[in-house]
Amino acid sequence: MAQRYVRVQTPSGQLRYGLLLLDRRVQLLDAPPWLKGQLTDMELAPDAYRLLAPCAPSKIVAVGKNYVKHAAEMGTAAPTQPLLFLKPPTTVLPPDEVILYPPQSQRVDYEGELALVIGDRCSDCPPEEALTKIWGYTIANDVTARDLQKQDGQWTRAKGFDTFCPLGPWIVREISPSAMLQTFVNNGETPTQSAAISEMAFSPEILVSYISQVMTLLPGDVVLTGTPQGIGPLNVGDRIRIAIEGIGSLENVVGRKNDAEPKKVETD
Amino acid sequence: MAQRYVRVQTPSGQLRYGLLLLDRRVQLLDAPPWLKGQLTDMELAPDAYRLLAPCAPSKIVAVGKNYVKHAAEMGTAAPTQPLLFLKPPTTVLPPDEVILYPPQSQRVDYEGELALVIGDRCSDCPPEEALTKIWGYTIANDVTARDLQKQDGQWTRAKGFDTFCPLGPWIVREISPSAMLQTFVNNGETPTQSAAISEMAFSPEILVSYISQVMTLLPGDVVLTGTPQGIGPLNVGDRIRIAIEGIGSLENVVGRKNDAEPKKVETD
Repeated sequence: MAQRYVRVQTPSGQLRYGLLLLDRRVQLLDAPPWLKGQLTDMELAPDAYRLLAPCAPSKIVAVGKNYVKHAAEMGTAAPTQPLLFLKPPTTVLPPDEVILYPPQSQRVDYEGELALVIGDRCSDCPPEEALTKIWGYTIANDVTARDLQKQDGQWTRAKGFDTFCPLGPWIVREISPSAMLQTFVNNGETPTQSAAISEMAFSPEILVSYISQVMTLLPGDVVLTGTPQGIGPLNVGDRIRIAIEGIGSLENVVGRKNDAEPKKVETD
Repeated sequence: MAQRYVRVQTPSGQLRYGLLLLDRRVQLLDAPPWLKGQLTDMELAPDAYRLLAPCAPSKIVAVGKNYVKHAAEMGTAAPTQPLLFLKPPTTVLPPDEVILYPPQSQRVDYEGELALVIGDRCSDCPPEEALTKIWGYTIANDVTARDLQKQDGQWTRAKGFDTFCPLGPWIVREISPSAMLQTFVNNGETPTQSAAISEMAFSPEILVSYISQVMTLLPGDVVLTGTPQGIGPLNVGDRIRIAIEGIGSLENVVGRKNDAEPKKVETD
């Protein structure tokens, strides 16, 4: 099995990076792995940490309509170049935590996506170098208030609510281009989304290169590569699982905003 | 004169917050002022620091068409509620530094704006409390590649290039609602933009409250409050000055992207 890089909260409240071992213990690193973090001899027992999102991005750059069949289901053509938008870092949600359904929306959708984690500062990077800037891969749910997306025109509010970017559960260094992405709602056996990541209109290296011609990407930043066809609504109480072959599964449940405790935002 | 809070780079490369004294010396604080930074007895001589943008926001939330006459000059009605978008933190540019004209655009505009600096973590904040969450006020230029804004539909790329958010030169704690915002291109005597900030459709406290219903605002985050009528193009070599009564002036020049040194992004 591939190495799984995690970010955890320790019992004393510290935020640390580490390697997830097969028996669920975590061996701690002394820094984020993309900042040359080295393994320490400190380990945390399986019940001695809380799993967080595996990185703390300074920005989350996302790409719209990057699977042709999803563009079609939204009633639009696939764009001729990547269509960029941003989600604020406050959207990041750890695995297994609660997506909060905001009172402003009557239609909140899941969007399963492959997420790229940037390892190196990256500006004006040609496509042939861009792959070397991607440190690893994880899973994201680009949760979207579909009604507000249409109403506003700009997607910032619809995609920017706290908890609207579940991310994780861990990062792997490599992924097969033929890996399947599948989304399951409420433990259903039939995935609602099922596509090979090779169906992307613009590949990870093209996306990173394109974005880097606009804005400098920094270590730990995240690029969301778009969602395939099969998006659909979430309801309070739903459980949503996004699986990508070679990574694992990202699971979250949906709760009502005002039922939840005030969310704590963890930053490094 | 009001206290002027600055962020500077010291000769040894450290990033520090401080108070700008009348003779241009800077008295250092031991932390950002909104995190209860206290004055130290360390001072920097006028030639011993580089002025940076006065904060290092984890996010920059901006508002479109917040002056009715600007909405009209863009050929649209003013929105019935605030229209949110984001600029990535990598857009931030210190006073007096070079706005880089990107090769992808043939039409880059200035947009002078009042910027709010958030002092307290702020989530679901009612309007009557929102004013207490605004630590201070500074000046921003929401530089926009107008052609790419129209082409993409989403504004992220058009407003997201490195150097597209000049910010500063300092923060003041209070501002008069009748303060004038004026923009001058190439030392012209007649401002191209001239409006009272009271002409905003949605006031600072309404904006902060509205944004906080969507995403948690954190100390040091920045809210751009929209630009008044009179926006216009920038050309390579232009000097642009945005003045707000009670704050001061933010000045930058425009350069060609590939003529410039690679930009260093400063984060705390």
